[in-house]
Amino acid sequence: MTAMGSTSAPSDQTIGGLGEGGLVRAVAALASGPTGSHPDVLIGPGDDAALVRVGGGEVLVSVDVAVEGRHFRRDWSSAADVGHRVAAANLADVAAMGGVARTLVVALSAPADLPAQWAVDLTRGLLAECEPMGARLVGGDVCEADVVSVAVTVLGELPGRVVRRAGARPGDVVAVTGRLGWAAAGLAVLSRGFRSPRVLVEAHRRPEPPYAEGPVAAAAGATAMIDVSDGLLADLAQLAGASDVSIDVRSGSLLVAEPLQAVGAALGTDPLGLVLTGGDDHALAATFPADVALPDGWTGIGAVSAGAGVTVDGATYDGPGGHRHFAGRG
Amino acid sequence: MTAMGSTSAPSDQTIGGLGEGGLVRAVAALASGPTGSHPDVLIGPGDDAALVRVGGGEVLVSVDVAVEGRHFRRDWSSAADVGHRVAAANLADVAAMGGVARTLVVALSAPADLPAQWAVDLTRGLLAECEPMGARLVGGDVCEADVVSVAVTVLGELPGRVVRRAGARPGDVVAVTGRLGWAAAGLAVLSRGFRSPRVLVEAHRRPEPPYAEGPVAAAAGATAMIDVSDGLLADLAQLAGASDVSIDVRSGSLLVAEPLQAVGAALGTDPLGLVLTGGDDHALAATFPADVALPDGWTGIGAVSAGAGVTVDGATYDGPGGHRHFAGRG
Repeated sequence: MTAMGSTSAPSDQTIGGLGEGGLVRAVAALASGPTGSHPDVLIGPGDDAALVRVGGGEVLVSVDVAVEGRHFRRDWSSAADVGHRVAAANLADVAAMGGVARTLVVALSAPADLPAQWAVDLTRGLLAECEPMGARLVGGDVCEADVVSVAVTVLGELPGRVVRRAGARPGDVVAVTGRLGWAAAGLAVLSRGFRSPRVLVEAHRRPEPPYAEGPVAAAAGATAMIDVSDGLLADLAQLAGASDVSIDVRSGSLLVAEPLQAVGAALGTDPLGLVLTGGDDHALAATFPADVALPDGWTGIGAVSAGAGVTVDGATYDGPGGHRHFAGRG
Repeated sequence: MTAMGSTSAPSDQTIGGLGEGGLVRAVAALASGPTGSHPDVLIGPGDDAALVRVGGGEVLVSVDVAVEGRHFRRDWSSAADVGHRVAAANLADVAAMGGVARTLVVALSAPADLPAQWAVDLTRGLLAECEPMGARLVGGDVCEADVVSVAVTVLGELPGRVVRRAGARPGDVVAVTGRLGWAAAGLAVLSRGFRSPRVLVEAHRRPEPPYAEGPVAAAAGATAMIDVSDGLLADLAQLAGASDVSIDVRSGSLLVAEPLQAVGAALGTDPLGLVLTGGDDHALAATFPADVALPDGWTGIGAVSAGAGVTVDGATYDGPGGHRHFAGRG
């Protein structure tokens, strides 16, 4: 891992070795520059989205890229599914800041022999995911590449206050809203050659992030927030690290829904592991002052203390960790 | 080619067959939706950048993607060169609207064994290209892929009026500023195994778009503008098409710089062909009312008339056309 202040990586270090986190930190250190941050960059790299002053307003901006074979397979997901999924990852990033997505642009790299209908259907999926909140696709770029990759950038705005990953305080309550483990269970099912339970497969293909709950949590006084894209424990670790606190999760408070129990039984795995470490559902996790009533739909699942790291029921979780981008993501 | 109103592509059509233009039109038709454009989308897909109302302001947004083997080769360009080049393509898109770039986000896909230093140097190049105008890199995403690809999204703002591709009127003067043919000549040199003239190779590696001239042209009353990324004739054809006019270029008014003449002689090609069809310099081409004095640094090269299409000295240009993305771009 490269330290925050460093502007170069060890000469023998690879991207895979450094990991996404290390690389993002190295790049963030460069981007902040030797003289610190720019007054128009209200929130820079390292949060779910950046917040910048531009064109007379304040704009949230985030980018996510999905690559065939890593993030999706064309035999497991339709083009429209991929559109839904890539859009959802971006829209959830904006929601996790307390914002509302307004505008998307997309860069599509694809083999020249990709059916044009696939690209059209991808666009339909993107648009359908955006439509309920009124977000618009306003531009794109297309170029040839050996595999399909889709990079989506989202612009959003804040109806109220912004909520960052940093800000959780000892004594705060940790709460979540949205599904946990469903998309990972769907992927596990597909990976083993099955197509059911259908509700889980669909959760992998088209996650249903609780977008509207981002601004709701901000209005309710959330002190920190993140979208659960890499798994609950992994993302809470990000939030805890940014906030310089520790978090303990009470496993008994986590809902292990019936389809997850069924998959756990069928696959011989602990369904709680899916809930704790499964990514790509884009649930929202946030911390709230203890005296705040949690908004409807949010469930308290743990507590913030002084210290560092994330524990489950007071102990280090010894199941598999949240997935790492460079350790293969399915 | 798919017509504007269509929302699906012929079932046997591929992306390569449809071409970037056809695909962008099909997607744009989808994005505009059955009920027309959204009031917050002031300029939608199909121009150099979109213009949207978001976060209380008006923001220009554009995305460009560069793929290893198509847009750059790691043995011909350093990581910093690639950073400069990808940033330049984006910043020029904003300039071509009359705007100033303020913020970039980058999505990097790369093999896990890519040296981390390459990504750091790429970032340095991006930052160095942005620094003179005060634009900032505020976020990014990284994921694993078989080849390196870099998707950059830029946000910008308008110091004055916006200038679109549409707006040229019969009687207007066509003018350009910036280099034409240099990057293509540099690529031709590299493709044949040479490394000189160095000034042309450098023009391929790090184009020098005349960013500041975009707002200058807007203030001077430009009626239409585009950045020359695909070649002068190809991009003027875009401008003419969007404006529903024809354009005639006077070849004698085009500067064929000495290094281009040298390369033409060495390679046995007409250097004027490089000037007319070479892409990736990101010069700016604009139309001005005939009674407007062209700003310093702009050269009148042709005239706008009623009709359609682009001619050179009154005739169809029979040299090689502007490059097409899916016909291989070097």
